Amino acid sequence: MLGNGSPEQLEGVAFHVFAANRDMVDKVFYDSDGELLVIPEQGRLLLLTELGRIDLAPGQIALVPRGVRFRVILPDGIARGYLAENFGAMFRLPELGPIGSNGLAGARDFETPVAWFEDRDTPTEVVQKYLGRLWSMTLDHSPLDVVAWHGNLAPFRYDLARFNVMGTVSFDHPDPSIFTVLSSPSDTPGRANADFVIFPPRWMVAEDTFRPPWFHRNVMSEAMGLIHGVYDAKADGFVPGAISLHNMMAGHGPDVATWEAASEAALQPHKIDGTMAFMIETCWPYRPTAHALATSQLDYDAVWAGFPKAQVNRP
Amino acid sequence: MLGNGSPEQLEGVAFHVFAANRDMVDKVFYDSDGELLVIPEQGRLLLLTELGRIDLAPGQIALVPRGVRFRVILPDGIARGYLAENFGAMFRLPELGPIGSNGLAGARDFETPVAWFEDRDTPTEVVQKYLGRLWSMTLDHSPLDVVAWHGNLAPFRYDLARFNVMGTVSFDHPDPSIFTVLSSPSDTPGRANADFVIFPPRWMVAEDTFRPPWFHRNVMSEAMGLIHGVYDAKADGFVPGAISLHNMMAGHGPDVATWEAASEAALQPHKIDGTMAFMIETCWPYRPTAHALATSQLDYDAVWAGFPKAQVNRP
Amino acid sequence: MLGNGSPEQLEGVAFHVFAANRDMVDKVFYDSDGELLVIPEQGRLLLLTELGRIDLAPGQIALVPRGVRFRVILPDGIARGYLAENFGAMFRLPELGPIGSNGLAGARDFETPVAWFEDRDTPTEVVQKYLGRLWSMTLDHSPLDVVAWHGNLAPFRYDLARFNVMGTVSFDHPDPSIFTVLSSPSDTPGRANADFVIFPPRWMVAEDTFRPPWFHRNVMSEAMGLIHGVYDAKADGFVPGAISLHNMMAGHGPDVATWEAASEAALQPHKIDGTMAFMIETCWPYRPTAHALATSQLDYDAVWAGFPKAQVNRP
Amino acid sequence: MLGNGSPEQLEGVAFHVFAANRDMVDKVFYDSDGELLVIPEQGRLLLLTELGRIDLAPGQIALVPRGVRFRVILPDGIARGYLAENFGAMFRLPELGPIGSNGLAGARDFETPVAWFEDRDTPTEVVQKYLGRLWSMTLDHSPLDVVAWHGNLAPFRYDLARFNVMGTVSFDHPDPSIFTVLSSPSDTPGRANADFVIFPPRWMVAEDTFRPPWFHRNVMSEAMGLIHGVYDAKADGFVPGAISLHNMMAGHGPDVATWEAASEAALQPHKIDGTMAFMIETCWPYRPTAHALATSQLDYDAVWAGFPKAQVNRP
Amino acid sequence: MLGNGSPEQLEGVAFHVFAANRDMVDKVFYDSDGELLVIPEQGRLLLLTELGRIDLAPGQIALVPRGVRFRVILPDGIARGYLAENFGAMFRLPELGPIGSNGLAGARDFETPVAWFEDRDTPTEVVQKYLGRLWSMTLDHSPLDVVAWHGNLAPFRYDLARFNVMGTVSFDHPDPSIFTVLSSPSDTPGRANADFVIFPPRWMVAEDTFRPPWFHRNVMSEAMGLIHGVYDAKADGFVPGAISLHNMMAGHGPDVATWEAASEAALQPHKIDGTMAFMIETCWPYRPTAHALATSQLDYDAVWAGFPKAQVNRP
Amino acid sequence: MLGNGSPEQLEGVAFHVFAANRDMVDKVFYDSDGELLVIPEQGRLLLLTELGRIDLAPGQIALVPRGVRFRVILPDGIARGYLAENFGAMFRLPELGPIGSNGLAGARDFETPVAWFEDRDTPTEVVQKYLGRLWSMTLDHSPLDVVAWHGNLAPFRYDLARFNVMGTVSFDHPDPSIFTVLSSPSDTPGRANADFVIFPPRWMVAEDTFRPPWFHRNVMSEAMGLIHGVYDAKADGFVPGAISLHNMMAGHGPDVATWEAASEAALQPHKIDGTMAFMIETCWPYRPTAHALATSQLDYDAVWAGFPKAQVNRP
Repeated sequence: MLGNGSPEQLEGVAFHVFAANRDMVDKVFYDSDGELLVIPEQGRLLLLTELGRIDLAPGQIALVPRGVRFRVILPDGIARGYLAENFGAMFRLPELGPIGSNGLAGARDFETPVAWFEDRDTPTEVVQKYLGRLWSMTLDHSPLDVVAWHGNLAPFRYDLARFNVMGTVSFDHPDPSIFTVLSSPSDTPGRANADFVIFPPRWMVAEDTFRPPWFHRNVMSEAMGLIHGVYDAKADGFVPGAISLHNMMAGHGPDVATWEAASEAALQPHKIDGTMAFMIETCWPYRPTAHALATSQLDYDAVWAGFPKAQVNRP
Repeated sequence: MLGNGSPEQLEGVAFHVFAANRDMVDKVFYDSDGELLVIPEQGRLLLLTELGRIDLAPGQIALVPRGVRFRVILPDGIARGYLAENFGAMFRLPELGPIGSNGLAGARDFETPVAWFEDRDTPTEVVQKYLGRLWSMTLDHSPLDVVAWHGNLAPFRYDLARFNVMGTVSFDHPDPSIFTVLSSPSDTPGRANADFVIFPPRWMVAEDTFRPPWFHRNVMSEAMGLIHGVYDAKADGFVPGAISLHNMMAGHGPDVATWEAASEAALQPHKIDGTMAFMIETCWPYRPTAHALATSQLDYDAVWAGFPKAQVNRP
Repeated sequence: MLGNGSPEQLEGVAFHVFAANRDMVDKVFYDSDGELLVIPEQGRLLLLTELGRIDLAPGQIALVPRGVRFRVILPDGIARGYLAENFGAMFRLPELGPIGSNGLAGARDFETPVAWFEDRDTPTEVVQKYLGRLWSMTLDHSPLDVVAWHGNLAPFRYDLARFNVMGTVSFDHPDPSIFTVLSSPSDTPGRANADFVIFPPRWMVAEDTFRPPWFHRNVMSEAMGLIHGVYDAKADGFVPGAISLHNMMAGHGPDVATWEAASEAALQPHKIDGTMAFMIETCWPYRPTAHALATSQLDYDAVWAGFPKAQVNRP
Repeated sequence: MLGNGSPEQLEGVAFHVFAANRDMVDKVFYDSDGELLVIPEQGRLLLLTELGRIDLAPGQIALVPRGVRFRVILPDGIARGYLAENFGAMFRLPELGPIGSNGLAGARDFETPVAWFEDRDTPTEVVQKYLGRLWSMTLDHSPLDVVAWHGNLAPFRYDLARFNVMGTVSFDHPDPSIFTVLSSPSDTPGRANADFVIFPPRWMVAEDTFRPPWFHRNVMSEAMGLIHGVYDAKADGFVPGAISLHNMMAGHGPDVATWEAASEAALQPHKIDGTMAFMIETCWPYRPTAHALATSQLDYDAVWAGFPKAQVNRP
Repeated sequence: MLGNGSPEQLEGVAFHVFAANRDMVDKVFYDSDGELLVIPEQGRLLLLTELGRIDLAPGQIALVPRGVRFRVILPDGIARGYLAENFGAMFRLPELGPIGSNGLAGARDFETPVAWFEDRDTPTEVVQKYLGRLWSMTLDHSPLDVVAWHGNLAPFRYDLARFNVMGTVSFDHPDPSIFTVLSSPSDTPGRANADFVIFPPRWMVAEDTFRPPWFHRNVMSEAMGLIHGVYDAKADGFVPGAISLHNMMAGHGPDVATWEAASEAALQPHKIDGTMAFMIETCWPYRPTAHALATSQLDYDAVWAGFPKAQVNRP
Repeated sequence: MLGNGSPEQLEGVAFHVFAANRDMVDKVFYDSDGELLVIPEQGRLLLLTELGRIDLAPGQIALVPRGVRFRVILPDGIARGYLAENFGAMFRLPELGPIGSNGLAGARDFETPVAWFEDRDTPTEVVQKYLGRLWSMTLDHSPLDVVAWHGNLAPFRYDLARFNVMGTVSFDHPDPSIFTVLSSPSDTPGRANADFVIFPPRWMVAEDTFRPPWFHRNVMSEAMGLIHGVYDAKADGFVPGAISLHNMMAGHGPDVATWEAASEAALQPHKIDGTMAFMIETCWPYRPTAHALATSQLDYDAVWAGFPKAQVNRP
């Protein structure tokens, strides 16, 4: 749907969607261009990889490292979701700064695959993505025959419900970077090639504050998806499975309805619950594919029509 | 009361208390050994410095840079408080990491002094602290006669009420580093020569969590003071104007009463209010002065007596 | 005229010229691709921006940050000059090294805009440059309606006459980097994405020295412009409003006339005055536009014809 | 005379003076505590080292690395001068910053010793300085018998007249760091354990400027010596062979006579000539020896008496 | 044959082969796009450069810096070999880490050219490679007329026989990075734009070890050449003058014959001798030229056919 | 026996020996001053710690982190060995540089303790080392009652036989840093607060080389111990349990016998076997204790008597 950078430059990220209704049989895939962050939205996935099996359900994420072969089984018959293909530095936990030694995603909650292999002498197609194209060859056996391995570059699974959310407990609306799960840094300190950020259930207690995200122009490009529930800055039109894009320097903010409601709200402690949105933020401009453009919402900016002019009191 | 490092090595911090009931007349002071972080607890202070005047009340802090001459007037006749004398790198705002571009103390809330000077030809004593000793000379005029200046190394004032407090809005108890106002780094990344940390009013909303600080052994040394109110991990015995010290590797935590209450509490959103404690945390071991030892609480560790043995269920 | 890198890669710089004879009415512009360094050569400019107004005259420069909307008024009816569009890291003051705490451009001489806004409900065209193309939309009011703002990413103005010029006060000809006003670093320490360097009035006192720039091949690409006066290494053919280009590895130096004069000159203290040339030096090779090639000087290298062969004394 | 830090901590510098009237015969010395920067002021020195011989005259400096054995011959029968004993990081050329690829001291002007050794079977005393004490042993032969060596840690000689002096060629008085010959950095970027700085012959052309050093308080400690001539900020009382000390935070500046002359001077280009002063600037406070205190000038601060009060015009 | 990156981005490397049977007469060449690492395989080369002459024979390498003009004479009438054209950071010695102060290639073994120039007034064609194209001009004299020069950016020669080879002296097969001669780093620490690595004569003493390279998938791209002898992981099909390529993520390892022999071998100390292969390893994917593809070995992967299935013992 | 730095400065290392013939009963110990590297030489140790149990035999090492409580049981009734008490940065694996992704000590070979706790209500003395002194208190139960823990700061065990030894496989004698097991860095890159280095069994295959350590003066201080066998540079006088010290700048090398044997030896592949010496190398000078001085070898330097004078051929 969206992408930037290129695997040839070892930087950038592509933001894909997937929908599947058939298992991969006698076929494996690997991506030589980047690591794959899998974000299911509907239906479970069973990832059978060279380094073990991962059972993955919506609300969890998985990462398959660059070059690791795998095939996918659909326990529920169908599956739908998002994929971030990261051409840059590998995703890692961010340095926590003043947050200290614990918080956000915890290292111990990243789960390595369950040991598994198959010993099958059936012809198996191996499909590789390399420099943006797909290449195929056939082996006389399944390459998912790795019995044991050693090292720490392995697929992993993470349950987003384990994210230890920080936020303001006094006033003001912090940057969404405070919700960073994983970060792919660039060579410029402070500038991410790609950040995986979530908007999980959490308490809102800010006093004297407009609580939703404010209007802003960003030096980063923001692409969002929604796993379930309702995102708190968009009352309408952003449903699970959709993508929203606000490229760098494009000003944006809540719609009028959200703005009005939040401006009037009594500021009691309030739990945002039953929702999980996410963002793949990147320092590069996203280019949409033709397909993305063809299926995009034409009047998107209408949500910002109707704001009344601010009243400036003059003596 | 407490100290470590030395001005000769350009590292370490000293933790002083002060009590005054007389203005400084025809006398100025400057500290060649370190910068002074002034934390009033009772009574306002008027700091008349070479670079302007600062009106300072409890709840605010001021910093006088190394080498800047000043004298102090007591608008309320008396004053009491704490002083952190920092021999290391100058206090600065911490890098915020995932907290992003805003949060904790904001640069714009640090106030430079109000322009002021005096043109007095009265003999004036200049007292200097240098290499741990006091030295005196007398000028035939007040040196607080600087009419204008340029640069950004100036005294400042900060109102602790402006601190934008972050904390967990989901579960767990974050490190107090999340409350860092100012930090004096050492040459080892991640290890502070001294951190000035506060425990301000804030919402507690953590679910499934023991909300007070837990028991821990720290590689840093923790010295605390209390400006007003009650500190949430000490039900008794820690009053405004007092100092508590837990040196590195000395395990500590809440007292039994706090532990019992927090273990039983129903975890509703709860606002901690009406209190302001602070900590000068340092990577070096604090050595107390003889005076501090002579006036210390002898049975301090009794607060940890009486914890019941944890029940381990065995089949 | 010249350019390299690209906004999509967040690196490189473009070197434009502009000439205008009409105010921007009911129209604003912003550049999502990079910040704009405005270097007027003829005629004053009035920049009306979202963050205030800047009155700009030849001899001064202004910078409009990426994404900031503005329109331009021509107080003199016409204006001409240069533009550097910087796709890389934002221009900043260079670290001064042994020059110490003061010298070259001083932070205090960079002026923020004068507070200004307009409250106009006239249809206004907003033109955006994004990924190398221009895009247009129309609002029903002027977006230059920002009444107040907070932060430090703002347009600025700098008067080149305030540059504190350093140079040799003994012998030899230092690198032009000693005249750096602003630098956009790359991720490689010591290698600038773009340096804005000036050749201002200054004293020449070097003894035992050929005082003009010497012949050299550079790993950087040098593009120069002239604001007024005569550049000291080019007796002819380089006039205000012109551009000269010496790309990386292309050897160059003074023309024969300059060489002869400087070789014979009596080395008294001498004030170079009444001139202001500048250079946008970059680590990347400049590519000229077709227009630039079509209007370039065909026999440029003739200035280096006629150098006599050096006499080597052999016994 | 002065010192700080200690060899045991691998930081600090000691500032010695020496006077000699006898050659070292059958005796060699080495310093395990630090490298020795030799700054002769009267009389030549012949340094016979394990790695060759150095002929050294006033106006030149030599450095003997930590641990290298040497003995000294006095070609003029007597010799006097200064020694900086550096316990910290080895002296090196500073990074030049905007000064670029050339300027200040040039790497090619540092001369390695002339090849030399002696093959003598005479009993030879070896005196070592180690942890601040002297230790002695006797060998049955001279250890200066190294016939050849490989590597780049060698004694060197540098002629201060080769220093390519930079300074202002417009206005203002730059920091003396612009005269840095060699620097011993600390682990804190920008803070020198010790800088060797000179005040060599140079042109003064600053316009609209008070040209001598201004009054200042420094975070560094300044110890100066004079090799020959007159230092431009001290009309009296600072003679070749003397040391002046202004420790950190001690305000200082020119004397009244210098101030008056410079305030009235017509600002023509002016060559300061016939002088060579130097400074060993350090981030640590210098402690003087008892001998230094006993021989110091008691009324030194009298040079600053007699400044008239500045006239402030009030309406 | 192979390449990646581009000179316009100042990153990447091209891997060329050359074959010549005629001297360059009245013609010189320089490469503005990158430095040239010359690796002769047959026939000596005489490199006549602006900075002196280099006599180069197979087994030695030479580097001509970017922008330096030279011509080539063939003392043996013919010559053949490899060229690495480096668009990124200049090749340098790697930091040795625990290997310490000596090992691998030694700085002292890199030889600067022998002083040489020519004073010829014959018309001379100068061919330049710039941004991937060749450009030509004609001078009326040879530009190789530089009589003397100063600096440290010069062509050099290195004899690969002087490489101090490290390896395991206990067990296991270390990474080939332990044979790095020269490295061109990228801006990402630990990731090389290009490494020049050799496989020289050396002792194999690893116990309990499969001694040839094992099977692996690499995040780097490996292109190899062979100067003489037989490479120990390829019993057939890789001859002097050939190139092998294993791009990133393409698994590879020894052929069946090598695998069988090494699996059975008695592990006595064994000297690999009479061979010199090399690798240009790079973090970017290599793209082969059309010529390279047209002349490549079609059934290369057949060397990996025939491996028996591993026997897993099951109870 | 030896030490430097201090726990108060968070730098330095102490080199202790221990001998024990009684279990610790009803007593635990912890060291607030530094982590303890335990190097047994005779007799096994059973370390019962808050975080589990470690069975430790000569040839293995264990590390107990700062502040972790433990007691020691002697399975063999007696035990003897060495202790390095590290006041500086925690010991860690060195960056491997060109050695690549594997080699020297492997992360996977560091073993965490076996889960263990005790639930004993016996009065237990807790002895703490803090700021160089021992402090005691008594609890009414054993504090080794930690049932489970989470984190990665834990005691560990490492078997020195698993060290993957690298060395020259061509010629020359590499620095002992190539045998670094663990390193405690200082804030100065490349300068270790303390390195733990071993001299394990390994193949010697260097050709054309004097194979033992050569004569050198070191900027580091070298203290060695011997676990078993014979160290290859000392034919006599260095036995298991002994310590040798060569402080910084003290030249040293093999004894005459070793020198003669190695100079004459036929250079066949040779396996050094049956020995394990180690070194605690530090950048600071070691100060011996009075006990160490009183028991030291008085005529140690006699091993270097008797070297013949080198014959220099003169024409």
